[in-house]
Amino acid sequence: CGAAMAQSSVAVYGRVDLSLGHLKEQGKASQSRMFDGNLTSTRLGFRGTEDLGGGLKASFKMEHRFDADTGASEDPMWKGESTLSLSGGFGELKLGRSSTIYDEVRGLSASSSVFDSAFTPSSNGVFGSGGDYSNRFNNKITYVLPSMGNLYGGVEYALDEDPDAKADMIGAKLGYKSGPLNLAMGLQQEKGKENDYLMVAAAYDFGVASVSGGYNVRNGNAASGDDNEFTVGVNVPLGALQLSAGFASGKTEKAGATSSKASGFGLGATYTLSKRTKLYGGVRSHQVKDGSGTKTADARLFAVGVRHDF
Amino acid sequence: CGAAMAQSSVAVYGRVDLSLGHLKEQGKASQSRMFDGNLTSTRLGFRGTEDLGGGLKASFKMEHRFDADTGASEDPMWKGESTLSLSGGFGELKLGRSSTIYDEVRGLSASSSVFDSAFTPSSNGVFGSGGDYSNRFNNKITYVLPSMGNLYGGVEYALDEDPDAKADMIGAKLGYKSGPLNLAMGLQQEKGKENDYLMVAAAYDFGVASVSGGYNVRNGNAASGDDNEFTVGVNVPLGALQLSAGFASGKTEKAGATSSKASGFGLGATYTLSKRTKLYGGVRSHQVKDGSGTKTADARLFAVGVRHDF
Amino acid sequence: CGAAMAQSSVAVYGRVDLSLGHLKEQGKASQSRMFDGNLTSTRLGFRGTEDLGGGLKASFKMEHRFDADTGASEDPMWKGESTLSLSGGFGELKLGRSSTIYDEVRGLSASSSVFDSAFTPSSNGVFGSGGDYSNRFNNKITYVLPSMGNLYGGVEYALDEDPDAKADMIGAKLGYKSGPLNLAMGLQQEKGKENDYLMVAAAYDFGVASVSGGYNVRNGNAASGDDNEFTVGVNVPLGALQLSAGFASGKTEKAGATSSKASGFGLGATYTLSKRTKLYGGVRSHQVKDGSGTKTADARLFAVGVRHDF
Repeated sequence: CGAAMAQSSVAVYGRVDLSLGHLKEQGKASQSRMFDGNLTSTRLGFRGTEDLGGGLKASFKMEHRFDADTGASEDPMWKGESTLSLSGGFGELKLGRSSTIYDEVRGLSASSSVFDSAFTPSSNGVFGSGGDYSNRFNNKITYVLPSMGNLYGGVEYALDEDPDAKADMIGAKLGYKSGPLNLAMGLQQEKGKENDYLMVAAAYDFGVASVSGGYNVRNGNAASGDDNEFTVGVNVPLGALQLSAGFASGKTEKAGATSSKASGFGLGATYTLSKRTKLYGGVRSHQVKDGSGTKTADARLFAVGVRHDF
Repeated sequence: CGAAMAQSSVAVYGRVDLSLGHLKEQGKASQSRMFDGNLTSTRLGFRGTEDLGGGLKASFKMEHRFDADTGASEDPMWKGESTLSLSGGFGELKLGRSSTIYDEVRGLSASSSVFDSAFTPSSNGVFGSGGDYSNRFNNKITYVLPSMGNLYGGVEYALDEDPDAKADMIGAKLGYKSGPLNLAMGLQQEKGKENDYLMVAAAYDFGVASVSGGYNVRNGNAASGDDNEFTVGVNVPLGALQLSAGFASGKTEKAGATSSKASGFGLGATYTLSKRTKLYGGVRSHQVKDGSGTKTADARLFAVGVRHDF
Repeated sequence: CGAAMAQSSVAVYGRVDLSLGHLKEQGKASQSRMFDGNLTSTRLGFRGTEDLGGGLKASFKMEHRFDADTGASEDPMWKGESTLSLSGGFGELKLGRSSTIYDEVRGLSASSSVFDSAFTPSSNGVFGSGGDYSNRFNNKITYVLPSMGNLYGGVEYALDEDPDAKADMIGAKLGYKSGPLNLAMGLQQEKGKENDYLMVAAAYDFGVASVSGGYNVRNGNAASGDDNEFTVGVNVPLGALQLSAGFASGKTEKAGATSSKASGFGLGATYTLSKRTKLYGGVRSHQVKDGSGTKTADARLFAVGVRHDF
């Protein structure tokens, strides 16, 4: 580790997020733990962009995910993303493994719901109680539309590469962003699981507070039924401090009858120590009941921690 | 990811190569796929050199290989290379896991045969139908000769570290390079598989086109027999475009009789978008027949893609 | 790999250590091998520090360990360390996976005993014959005391995260450093193995030579018994050359009777080629006997190699 690396083609970046807290799940003993990634997942990445001239660019991104509390790699090695893309006036064409564009609409719906973190109820136990979506796909071709005034969007397709399985995925997103308002709709059709997801999400920044929310529908098959889910959240900035609360609820119906109901809430705060470092704390609680009202799952999480970007 | 890293001792480098295409293999359904590494394998590497004074240098290289279509690491983690070497007037002494020097002669024979890629017939199904070589070894000691006019070469030895197995490897290479001509001979003796490989390869750059070719012999045991194989190829540069074609053929003989015959061809084109980014497309087709002329394997590959270096 | 990366927030560092030699263990055939890490373990790391103002700093460190002779990752991926820490006038608070502070006292006791390497007898077969300690823990909270004149120290706690297992770890260290003298005491209580370790170590640098030594006690349960162990070593600098020798001895007692005795020695030399590169060679020999004096294990290691830092 010496002097002046001559290199513009690759940037090394990452984030480490560790916290201490408590998790209590139904049927398990209460547990004090060190957690990785309660605000956002720990990662190490490599990325770069080359200007090809004529407004065309080539970019790559490889993002490793791991658990800083144990030093263990998540699976696969480049779980976060491994993509190559060409972009220009036509928009962006991206190949490889990455998050789905429907997942971005899920993110928008929770953007002010306890920082879209492990304290956010919608993405931790409430949504998906009837069959959860895959937030990333391998072998994916994503086309992102070019800038079109206030509109944005994209379409994507993931090859399943198993001639017998028919587990392709089709996704689409359309959004409208104007000043403080961000509205988007996303769909994801997972043929392997016979699940179609459709979400409408919105976020609005009032200045003294920002709010976000969304409504999500899953259409499954006879065995998995259908889900109807919604979430709302609010973030309140107070200087270096930010307070947030979120609520989410959902139910699954099979053959016209409710087979499960889930709901939960989260509360959290972040404190900005510097541009790259935040302290945080939060709680989350959710429960799932079956059609007869019997509780089938619950969890309560409490943690305080620190997140550092590099 | 902020400002001015003071570091000369390590360079981060890599390559991402993704393509879309079609693979049809005998006995399997035709398959549309996203492919990793059809032009050259995707990688992330770390390397550096230290000047020790007196003409002596120490160098290291660690090269991770992974599949950008799925984000999965290949095995082992540093599959491409993990070496430490000392070099100077005496030549270079390299320790660790790396490609064999015989593999470099294989590379020379295919250097103008569809860019030594997944479209090159010799290295994809045609050569090695009677028993393929290992292109890398662990625990390898490689000695590369110093510059000696037009001659170059080296010897190497890989320890097998299993007293019972006797799976050592011995390799040697001798080459002659003068202007447009490059001639080399390489041998690799794999004691574990009881296979000896010997190859003669040549490449010549005529300016309007470059050609390459080689003849390879494997001497195995009674069970695996012997192979005789050859390949030829041509690359034609046309400005940013480069066209290439290759052909390869081989047969295996056991107890004096032909037990299998293999042949194939490849065609491809690359288009240079920039110093670091290429578009490419190619086809490859090969088939293997047994001694009675019955087809035992075939494959047809077609793909178009993009490769980006960093 | 191009020009001028603007990045101060992460440094890439590492070390490659490869050697050739011979290992003979009791009951096994003698073996010529390429070794990884006989002087110190091969690694690749990422680290950085952010100044948070007011004397406060945030730091991260991720250290991958791998075997350069085979290219294989050790397990877990970030075996060496994965931590996030906050430091300031109050000292340092570090979260994540890392070496224990008791392990640092073990290191001090062997610092002049053949370079605390694979040639050091205490850490390779002699100490721990009755039950060895874990040198790293997951889910660890370490508090390092701030600078207090000649005193230094810390305490730590590792959560076991299994409510049934009670495998927490508690550690503490207290040291005194003044000029050439460094004295420290460390303890580590591993509840999962029912082992308590306590070590006193010292090192003194006379200029013409440095010496180190230590006395270690393990208090186990009825099945594992108790250990009493000591080690001494000396390093002699002779310009670019450094010579070293070490000796270690230990015994395990169960129910008042000696159940095993172990002893061993090591000899080694390093030659500094440059700031970042060293040649080295060494031998180590140790043996373990049971209560009746019958030899139950022995090993002889000889190797010469090179270590390169970056």
